[in-house]
Amino acid sequence: MADYAPVRGCMIVRPYGWTLWENIQQALDRRFKATGHVNAAFPLLIPKSFIEREKSHVEGFSPELAVVTVGGGKELEEPLVIRPTSETIIGHAYARWIQSYRDLPVLINQWNSVVRWELRTKLFLRTLEFFWQEGHTAHATYEEAQSETLQMLDIYADFAVKDAAIPVIPGRKSESERFAGADQTYSIEAMMGDGKALQSATSHNLGQNFAKAFDIRYLDKEGRLQYCWTTSWGLSTRMVGAIVMVHGDDQGMILPPRLAPIQAVIVPIYKNDSEQAQVVEAGRRLRAQLAAADIRVKLDEREGTTPGFKFNDWEMRGVPLRIELGPRDVAKASVVLARRDRPGKEGKSVVPQAGLLEAVTKSLAEVQSSLYERALAFREANTHQPADYEEFKAAVETGFAFSHWCGGGECEGQIKEETKATVRCIPLEQPETEGSCIRCGRPARERAIFGKAY
Amino acid sequence: MADYAPVRGCMIVRPYGWTLWENIQQALDRRFKATGHVNAAFPLLIPKSFIEREKSHVEGFSPELAVVTVGGGKELEEPLVIRPTSETIIGHAYARWIQSYRDLPVLINQWNSVVRWELRTKLFLRTLEFFWQEGHTAHATYEEAQSETLQMLDIYADFAVKDAAIPVIPGRKSESERFAGADQTYSIEAMMGDGKALQSATSHNLGQNFAKAFDIRYLDKEGRLQYCWTTSWGLSTRMVGAIVMVHGDDQGMILPPRLAPIQAVIVPIYKNDSEQAQVVEAGRRLRAQLAAADIRVKLDEREGTTPGFKFNDWEMRGVPLRIELGPRDVAKASVVLARRDRPGKEGKSVVPQAGLLEAVTKSLAEVQSSLYERALAFREANTHQPADYEEFKAAVETGFAFSHWCGGGECEGQIKEETKATVRCIPLEQPETEGSCIRCGRPARERAIFGKAY
Repeated sequence: MADYAPVRGCMIVRPYGWTLWENIQQALDRRFKATGHVNAAFPLLIPKSFIEREKSHVEGFSPELAVVTVGGGKELEEPLVIRPTSETIIGHAYARWIQSYRDLPVLINQWNSVVRWELRTKLFLRTLEFFWQEGHTAHATYEEAQSETLQMLDIYADFAVKDAAIPVIPGRKSESERFAGADQTYSIEAMMGDGKALQSATSHNLGQNFAKAFDIRYLDKEGRLQYCWTTSWGLSTRMVGAIVMVHGDDQGMILPPRLAPIQAVIVPIYKNDSEQAQVVEAGRRLRAQLAAADIRVKLDEREGTTPGFKFNDWEMRGVPLRIELGPRDVAKASVVLARRDRPGKEGKSVVPQAGLLEAVTKSLAEVQSSLYERALAFREANTHQPADYEEFKAAVETGFAFSHWCGGGECEGQIKEETKATVRCIPLEQPETEGSCIRCGRPARERAIFGKAY
Repeated sequence: MADYAPVRGCMIVRPYGWTLWENIQQALDRRFKATGHVNAAFPLLIPKSFIEREKSHVEGFSPELAVVTVGGGKELEEPLVIRPTSETIIGHAYARWIQSYRDLPVLINQWNSVVRWELRTKLFLRTLEFFWQEGHTAHATYEEAQSETLQMLDIYADFAVKDAAIPVIPGRKSESERFAGADQTYSIEAMMGDGKALQSATSHNLGQNFAKAFDIRYLDKEGRLQYCWTTSWGLSTRMVGAIVMVHGDDQGMILPPRLAPIQAVIVPIYKNDSEQAQVVEAGRRLRAQLAAADIRVKLDEREGTTPGFKFNDWEMRGVPLRIELGPRDVAKASVVLARRDRPGKEGKSVVPQAGLLEAVTKSLAEVQSSLYERALAFREANTHQPADYEEFKAAVETGFAFSHWCGGGECEGQIKEETKATVRCIPLEQPETEGSCIRCGRPARERAIFGKAY
């Protein structure tokens, strides 16, 4: 999927990993466009002074900047930073583009990469350069901005559930975990196969913070000059890491069919040249049939490797369906279909070639939903509602605790120190019961998801 | 389409311009994938020492580098450059990925942006940061690499002609205009509306230059270690500039239908509220019909602006077809269809609403081919085969000269000094006549296209 690059902490996304990302891009881009967003491109290089205009933004991002000081052989008068995120340069542009209420809302997204100088890196989860989309919108009212913020969170959750087969918890971030410059940050949180939490996408209501820092104003219908309300939201190649960590098993990855670069692989099985000619010819015919119906199918024609090697190889790469084709299958006009999510005999079935497309379509849908169900069951089995702090400590050792929290930063900090668990989010969906904070015992209106994070 | 960014020479590509680029991307990406290429992503940051490994590469690119010297608040031990192009970092990766002849060919493309510190910039044509795709392939033999190089040139030409409606001349670059590190550079050259030449895409046979600099080797079938043969090829947002400059007129842009973000715009015409309700309702119905057939259609419902203003606005933006819809049209169940490439009565026709999809599809195809024919006629009218150097000088004042050239750098330099015209390319298609060099009179086997370049 990816290699580390020669520059510390940067990654090379190999074709198989990038195709997965392209499928993620398409699934999201379709949703963005259906809700009225358009794509654009803003520059990679930002004057360093821009970052300094919004107070919390500069505090959050200055330690992570990559700074260009030389261009065309000369020392630059003002250093430039490689964008760590684009609120500032986009704010600068929006201030020029937006004049009146007629220009609102502005609903723009961009697909690009950003650079944050992280000290500890891990492929896909935290890299110096990562790939993402960042949406940036401007609105006339707080209500519209808030509704956009939640709409985009909802789109991320819908994508995660339906396409990535990952159950997620949409919720609000605690104050300490907010985006630098946001009034409110929301995220979707997922549980990985080891019980740890991964923040999988975020959506920020930026209030008027960037509008004031960059003077983004509009004339309202009554001719008064008003500051805009802005939002931003992003999902990154970290999602690739989530998919790998949620659905993998001991044999390797299991990719959800809706996003898998290869949905079905045909492996020809033969002992001699005449058998080979026969099964490969049948394989090509079946491949053409499936491809014509937009199944992403591959025929593994590699020579000099055994079928067993090929089985292992494609299992490791997480291809959801394997189609085995030997001389006996050809004679009987059938194939053996094997599901990646159910290794062994249980996941195998003999299917007539005449009904292959139907069987493949059905099996892909089954793999997709069984991956989701399995991940959901795992998360539920590893999410506890501890009765006291001792139970809480045990719960966050292996999964999530869903506990009342007073909302105070002091309890949050103590919990982190004592258990390494953090407030992942305060879920939007809350059981309607008041309770007492799991740490301090004071009355608490809401429950939070606590867990150890990547 | 685009604005200058706050950083000198960088651009912001606005949604309308970016959608045009997305359509270009799709048209090319489809062709790349159909010829066996896959996409991947290589890092933005390259160790400065990498650029220095290939002798001509460093000479060509070092004056144009943007250099990162500070990361995470600390001076870096080795400065990093923002990629001006990715041969070096990809060479480094290929050296690790490629072991044997079984791993070849490697056929990878990436869509990204690169930074070259240009002194004189012009939106879309020459910017510090520009968007492009860069393909990088590795092969076992010179012949395969050469055939890939020419295949990609052919794909660019096919795209330019069929999708961008731009006639192009595929040819070889002279030695002085080669890519820094290439054995041979090929390009497609187009004539802009002012008679100047624009290099619209390039394809390079890199020989074994980068393979030797980065040690990209493979074991051949006989077990001998061999250097690979590599290629690279790219097309950039400069193509957006070409489209604007080739097809525009005094009223603004004219976008080729196959790439236009909006192919047809419906403008409702009304004098009062009841007329408005009537035509807007009809407009929405027609829009839905066309959109269902994948026509990129927009209904201009803006209030407070006249139809005349809207006509001008969409003309300026180059929308190929306008659909006018007034109360009389609604009554007669017809519309007025107006072609952007033929302003005035000549380009207008009354079309029954029942046959609108058919008429729109036909008109879009007609606009597409008429734009191409017109551009071709213009180029032919402005390409001369001068009899002597005086005629040559006159020819390159307003267009191209297609003249015999001895191939010598001295003549090339003198011509440039005396006329400002350069060898745009030595066309692959050559009339089979020998002749004498237009500058020195010595025997010359080939003709070159000379012109002033952007």
